Amino acid sequence: MAQKVRVAVVGASGYTGGELLRLLASHPHVDITLVTAEKHAGKQVQDVFPSLRGSVGAQPLVKADASEIRAQADFAFTALPHHTAASVVAELWTAGMPVVDLSADYRFEELSVYEAWYGAHPRPDVIPQAIYGLPELHRERIRGAKLVANPGCYVTSAILALAPLLRDGLIEPTDILDDAKSGMSGAGRSASEEMLFSEVNEGFRPYKVANHRHQPEIEKELSTQAGGTEVRVTFVPHLLPINRGILSSIYCKPKAGVTVKEALEAWDRAYGGEYFVRLVGQGKVPNPGHVRGSNFCDLGLHFDERQNRLILFSALDNLVKGASGQAVQNMNLMLGFDETAGLDRFPIFP
Amino acid sequence: MAQKVRVAVVGASGYTGGELLRLLASHPHVDITLVTAEKHAGKQVQDVFPSLRGSVGAQPLVKADASEIRAQADFAFTALPHHTAASVVAELWTAGMPVVDLSADYRFEELSVYEAWYGAHPRPDVIPQAIYGLPELHRERIRGAKLVANPGCYVTSAILALAPLLRDGLIEPTDILDDAKSGMSGAGRSASEEMLFSEVNEGFRPYKVANHRHQPEIEKELSTQAGGTEVRVTFVPHLLPINRGILSSIYCKPKAGVTVKEALEAWDRAYGGEYFVRLVGQGKVPNPGHVRGSNFCDLGLHFDERQNRLILFSALDNLVKGASGQAVQNMNLMLGFDETAGLDRFPIFP
Amino acid sequence: MAQKVRVAVVGASGYTGGELLRLLASHPHVDITLVTAEKHAGKQVQDVFPSLRGSVGAQPLVKADASEIRAQADFAFTALPHHTAASVVAELWTAGMPVVDLSADYRFEELSVYEAWYGAHPRPDVIPQAIYGLPELHRERIRGAKLVANPGCYVTSAILALAPLLRDGLIEPTDILDDAKSGMSGAGRSASEEMLFSEVNEGFRPYKVANHRHQPEIEKELSTQAGGTEVRVTFVPHLLPINRGILSSIYCKPKAGVTVKEALEAWDRAYGGEYFVRLVGQGKVPNPGHVRGSNFCDLGLHFDERQNRLILFSALDNLVKGASGQAVQNMNLMLGFDETAGLDRFPIFP
Amino acid sequence: MAQKVRVAVVGASGYTGGELLRLLASHPHVDITLVTAEKHAGKQVQDVFPSLRGSVGAQPLVKADASEIRAQADFAFTALPHHTAASVVAELWTAGMPVVDLSADYRFEELSVYEAWYGAHPRPDVIPQAIYGLPELHRERIRGAKLVANPGCYVTSAILALAPLLRDGLIEPTDILDDAKSGMSGAGRSASEEMLFSEVNEGFRPYKVANHRHQPEIEKELSTQAGGTEVRVTFVPHLLPINRGILSSIYCKPKAGVTVKEALEAWDRAYGGEYFVRLVGQGKVPNPGHVRGSNFCDLGLHFDERQNRLILFSALDNLVKGASGQAVQNMNLMLGFDETAGLDRFPIFP
Repeated sequence: MAQKVRVAVVGASGYTGGELLRLLASHPHVDITLVTAEKHAGKQVQDVFPSLRGSVGAQPLVKADASEIRAQADFAFTALPHHTAASVVAELWTAGMPVVDLSADYRFEELSVYEAWYGAHPRPDVIPQAIYGLPELHRERIRGAKLVANPGCYVTSAILALAPLLRDGLIEPTDILDDAKSGMSGAGRSASEEMLFSEVNEGFRPYKVANHRHQPEIEKELSTQAGGTEVRVTFVPHLLPINRGILSSIYCKPKAGVTVKEALEAWDRAYGGEYFVRLVGQGKVPNPGHVRGSNFCDLGLHFDERQNRLILFSALDNLVKGASGQAVQNMNLMLGFDETAGLDRFPIFP
Repeated sequence: MAQKVRVAVVGASGYTGGELLRLLASHPHVDITLVTAEKHAGKQVQDVFPSLRGSVGAQPLVKADASEIRAQADFAFTALPHHTAASVVAELWTAGMPVVDLSADYRFEELSVYEAWYGAHPRPDVIPQAIYGLPELHRERIRGAKLVANPGCYVTSAILALAPLLRDGLIEPTDILDDAKSGMSGAGRSASEEMLFSEVNEGFRPYKVANHRHQPEIEKELSTQAGGTEVRVTFVPHLLPINRGILSSIYCKPKAGVTVKEALEAWDRAYGGEYFVRLVGQGKVPNPGHVRGSNFCDLGLHFDERQNRLILFSALDNLVKGASGQAVQNMNLMLGFDETAGLDRFPIFP
Repeated sequence: MAQKVRVAVVGASGYTGGELLRLLASHPHVDITLVTAEKHAGKQVQDVFPSLRGSVGAQPLVKADASEIRAQADFAFTALPHHTAASVVAELWTAGMPVVDLSADYRFEELSVYEAWYGAHPRPDVIPQAIYGLPELHRERIRGAKLVANPGCYVTSAILALAPLLRDGLIEPTDILDDAKSGMSGAGRSASEEMLFSEVNEGFRPYKVANHRHQPEIEKELSTQAGGTEVRVTFVPHLLPINRGILSSIYCKPKAGVTVKEALEAWDRAYGGEYFVRLVGQGKVPNPGHVRGSNFCDLGLHFDERQNRLILFSALDNLVKGASGQAVQNMNLMLGFDETAGLDRFPIFP
Repeated sequence: MAQKVRVAVVGASGYTGGELLRLLASHPHVDITLVTAEKHAGKQVQDVFPSLRGSVGAQPLVKADASEIRAQADFAFTALPHHTAASVVAELWTAGMPVVDLSADYRFEELSVYEAWYGAHPRPDVIPQAIYGLPELHRERIRGAKLVANPGCYVTSAILALAPLLRDGLIEPTDILDDAKSGMSGAGRSASEEMLFSEVNEGFRPYKVANHRHQPEIEKELSTQAGGTEVRVTFVPHLLPINRGILSSIYCKPKAGVTVKEALEAWDRAYGGEYFVRLVGQGKVPNPGHVRGSNFCDLGLHFDERQNRLILFSALDNLVKGASGQAVQNMNLMLGFDETAGLDRFPIFP
């Protein structure tokens, strides 16, 4: 085995940071050489993630600037809040360090769209350097990339279902509805009353109705997939009382004359050779409970003949294929590893 | 206090039967004088519902035919499987006994629609006698009724949100989508592998996609509300890993020129005086966790301006307003009690 | 009906406050005339408890001092943090207002025990006025009381199981172990990372091992019940990933010659006439899921013959019999109402 | 890499069978060449475990007798019901095939103890061949074994906590209490009303109180560890509303003069070099939510000075270290692989 690549996890106190540590700890080709945190600096990883007690758990959480990160690692994952990420990533990029950024800061080519939803961008000059990190759509560009913007969780779920149909011009691009449901880890680890166990458990609620910033991200990427045609999506996220997992129920209209068979064939063409996308097959449905802890995205398709509506279901683990697993997949491509390295495990069920 | 009415709960082993017992046990104007069951006959109520230990719990579960029910009670609730209900209800009706039937057997005026989804009806002759038991829409007819067909849980949730808008001609009647989510008690109490705790917990799945028999029930009632105009709904139910509660996320299109204000006013007119329908107000969302154990239905409305889509949210407890609570509300009307008798309790939270 | 008593709920933002409002809203003999809060003053009840939307929900949350409380109500419940409660309660008591205090501040006759666990007491002079509010043990004294200290949730669960056995001298008083498990609402409503849904769900953990301040409360009350004999209990609480409910698994040793039958008879004598204590019967076990939302405490008894250990199980809803329901029961006694008024509802299941 | 070992999973429809498939699918040194099932024969693995969709999921479920198993595999795991296992295992053993048996059939050296709890044993002649598969206690004997009896889940949890203390004579051997709590996957995958989601969720209950057959298994193994001294344990299991995980809260008495420090040192000596046992350290507690999906067992120790009670907490995943993970660990020893092969992953959190 060749020498291992030294990786840094920058911002490791939240759930995506912890998930990166979990996945990287058993990755065959990397060593975690630096783990940074702000608030928890001075503690050990296992103080914030008792689940990681052991080798990775004993690592210190440190504050580190870009030059120190550059000194101690060959590759960085940034799991920082939006805006903070932009600056740190820009410095790492300037220092020549390959980075996968899990924030939204480098996901939008168009600055105006970013700024409409996230506010001013501290380093717009670096934006053109970033590749959108959805390997099933942009594999070749990711291979050569130095800066990869890891997609949002809801976004990955929606795009994997819709991209082949839009690419092949099978559905109406402006009559799409995504009724999405996410487990609570997607809402982050910051303490707030509305995220307390007792507030959430045995309930279910929509939030940011048709006003979530994953909507423009879904639309801009799908428009790209549709060859520049404008794509419009009504996006309504809901919070499920489960830890992990997204199910997107997506409703769209086939163009005149398009058959269900053609839609299924488009999926087959797109994903027949993809390890991480599983087509569940006729009469079956995806369930986030069947991808838990894994990098799989499960897709299923139904047709409401009476109403001429295609109904797509897409399930993934928001912390894995929706965040840290996809980030590792991107690193694998960037560094020339087998794309499934460290990710070739089946979901935990039940 | 006047003499109490003697009521029978026919078919008390399932969740709706148990919920009837819970609600009736503290109803001020009735005595539970008969509780029937098939499989569990010979046991006591508390053997199948330890939660009811106490006065109601000590009652025996007996097998009883229509004449015995008639002898021992003045009013009957039937919580039996479809088809079984049809026969028992017909006999009770023939014997002159007022009944609220919680099955689907008397919900469809049109026999053909019933038979397309449920199979042959054993007593089509009795169908015309039944009134559809949604008090907020049919209060006056329920007051004089002898036989009330209690609506389905998903159906109540959808109709309460949509009826005012269709009645006033504010939305397109054939472009409606109901992405509905229900707690597991809605799936009944029969043992099956797919309903085991470990199969359901930490997961979420659609089922009977665009093929659930609540769809024709929603459509026929909404068509009535729309003055006979055909209403078409794509209905996709999902199962939530919670005990109780439905959230319907309903997507529809306002007719040209219709404003959100008009939609809200239609709701206000319809429900301003209704005790059991609560409008959550602008910027808020209903949550089944906030109606748990109560007969309330909470409604909220959002508007996706970009896509010109109205988004309605409707939340209720599938066992109360979606079944047994509404049944008691119907009884209250039929017997001239205060409509809220036995139902005037706030939800349990958390 | 005689005129209703005007009650104030002082400190209504937390779960016990909300539960008081839920129970009092349908209590036949009281009107809620004042609802106080600190942080949320200026909002309405339904802003902090959307479940209470409706009549009680529309009430304002106000800041109020003792004199204003006295002016607007005839009876007060105080659901305030420890120490804050002590002062407010003392003022209310001085002003001649009957109070049920849900804090720990007046539960300990011995100041030194209180201060060892809670710190300095601002008004030790008022302590002798308080009656310990466990109606099944102190009913007659509560009837005449002006100030009732409502017991802790774990404490009620443990005492109801153990008191009859200690009173009758059937078990060893210093070899008692209480392995208790509580739902998350018992941990309060303050935002903290360790109480976030994702931290709690799918987990289970002990806390404050043999160091929880309900231990001295259990011991002092049981010592009283044992006629002054010292009682010692190892108390180990755990947090269950459920909203409501306590199960105490209590292990003790029968004194030489004592039979299981005698233990059961002691329970029968103590609770045969009690509405709120239910003995589950041989071979059965209590389950907090069977008392949800109700004021019942379910008790079950097993015997490990090989080890000569009595095993007692006690289940209650920590927010009802463990807090607000018991507080209402105390008020009923203090004001001469039927003891079950407002509390005569069966649990919600499932 | 040397040629992979061909393994058979015999009885793959239940949760421990599925977990074996999950773990073996990414084990570096084995190929799953045969997967057997009775009821589901003819289907594919992914029909009973949609989570395993992919390479392992496409494998057929077949009926196979011992000779066919022997022909198609070099090593077998048997995850069959008690009694059925005994016969199949005996045949495989006779045919010279190395086996890890996950049933209880070969766990008891003393036939009489087995038969008292499980009934007649079909092949008592094979019992002496079996080694009890708890690697941390019997590593060397497992290395040479052809037949390993994999321990029970509760048993592993209890023994790992207690064995070092009994071995070193630090605690009283006959005053031990194990109040254990298990997730629902421990109760199996057979449909029954009491295991339905709605029956279990939001509840918690003891079962088989001081009458569970893991009790004799705990006692016999601990007696061995204690050098033949009789060990007696009161064992009371409870069911947690979570999918996976056991927490054992174990109460025992230090012998006169024994200090907490000595107890901790005994654990350090026993587990300092063990990869799969993690000592959580002072003031901390194990939580099954922190070992989910992993082969770790986390141990914590507290002391109730007032009562002179040692309180041990032991947490593991009942399907991994409590069953299938330990089975793979045993295979690794039997076949001379690295003991952590296929098991070196951190838990999934949250």
